[in-house]
Amino acid sequence: MKKAVCLFSGGMDSAVCLYYARREGYEVVALSFDYGQRHEKEVEAAHRLTHDLQIPQHVIRFKLPWKGSSLLERDGAMPQYRDPERMSRTIPSTYVPARNSIFLSFAFSCAEAENAEAIFFGANALDYSGYPDCRPEYLEVFAAAMQCGTKAGAEGRKIEVQAPLIHLTKKAIVLLGQKLGVPFEKTWSCYVGGDEPCGACDSCVLRAKGFREAGIPDPLIA
Amino acid sequence: MKKAVCLFSGGMDSAVCLYYARREGYEVVALSFDYGQRHEKEVEAAHRLTHDLQIPQHVIRFKLPWKGSSLLERDGAMPQYRDPERMSRTIPSTYVPARNSIFLSFAFSCAEAENAEAIFFGANALDYSGYPDCRPEYLEVFAAAMQCGTKAGAEGRKIEVQAPLIHLTKKAIVLLGQKLGVPFEKTWSCYVGGDEPCGACDSCVLRAKGFREAGIPDPLIA
Repeated sequence: MKKAVCLFSGGMDSAVCLYYARREGYEVVALSFDYGQRHEKEVEAAHRLTHDLQIPQHVIRFKLPWKGSSLLERDGAMPQYRDPERMSRTIPSTYVPARNSIFLSFAFSCAEAENAEAIFFGANALDYSGYPDCRPEYLEVFAAAMQCGTKAGAEGRKIEVQAPLIHLTKKAIVLLGQKLGVPFEKTWSCYVGGDEPCGACDSCVLRAKGFREAGIPDPLIA
Repeated sequence: MKKAVCLFSGGMDSAVCLYYARREGYEVVALSFDYGQRHEKEVEAAHRLTHDLQIPQHVIRFKLPWKGSSLLERDGAMPQYRDPERMSRTIPSTYVPARNSIFLSFAFSCAEAENAEAIFFGANALDYSGYPDCRPEYLEVFAAAMQCGTKAGAEGRKIEVQAPLIHLTKKAIVLLGQKLGVPFEKTWSCYVGGDEPCGACDSCVLRAKGFREAGIPDPLIA
């Protein structure tokens, strides 16, 4: 059975991506990160979902000892609601320097060690909030670098980066997740991490927009 | 003053690289990793050296929960002495999957946050023990990926990867280090991490070869 490493935060997008990889016939190993983001609700959601699916999950823990992102500053105010139009043109303060490269490097390490042939990554370039490390051209050149700099690559074994959500709207992601049977009520998207989603951070706003446009109530809120 | 992040393991090569960056006029921030390698002597050496130089040091700690390298297996026997000729043609068991990509991703994250314009990396492609992630072509395409996937890159700010040792022999590295005043007695290269260098692992063999060919006694052993 072909094997894939799936970057899995416990959020809506990565959950849809993980279910997609399974439907594509991959045996999935989930890879999650606890890196000093504001709250552990994401990590807990990821753990719950992989436990339900009975798939293996690796969790990498590290701290970034430098500043550079509102996502890592527990005391700072979380920037709230920006116009979605503007969102896609500016890099938000929640950008964590080189974060997806760190995640993908670990994913390649895992894929090499686990003999996986693909990495699934729920990056999204449409509602992508302006993150440079969610763009298709970045993923392409990063994968090329890893092909060059890994034992797998040197031995001619290809590890592919698949980003099946990259060109989907949030609406399309919600509809795809529904089709795949993703338990949205168990995913967590809010950056703030209170008892309930804050409803005001970028992540909440985009998620709400997706459900609204799909014409489906978000079971996490309902 | 221009600023650089210097990947710094506490070994001979990265120490020479760090001293080189300082001589080039950079204000240096050292970046070290504690990632479950066999011993902490490397990390301690790095700490001592940065303390002596009074330069800031960040230490990133993580564990790779998968297998795939003899460097991470504390119980396994360390593979010893391989013919240096053969070394450069095969990938040794000490290869850690995607390790340098993980290190460099963190270095780019640090460089973005610290507003540094360069990353110094003591990779060496000549006595490089066959690691695919020490090759110049890998460093080039990796840097291109990071240019594409970081805020710095998106904003037109270039972060350069400098690998000044990449084409040097171990002999030349020893001579350069001597010229730069590197306190070799405070560096640590041995993979095994006993009280004294084992003298038999790849790293010890290459270091000894360098000092021997440079006609200088290794102060760590003498």
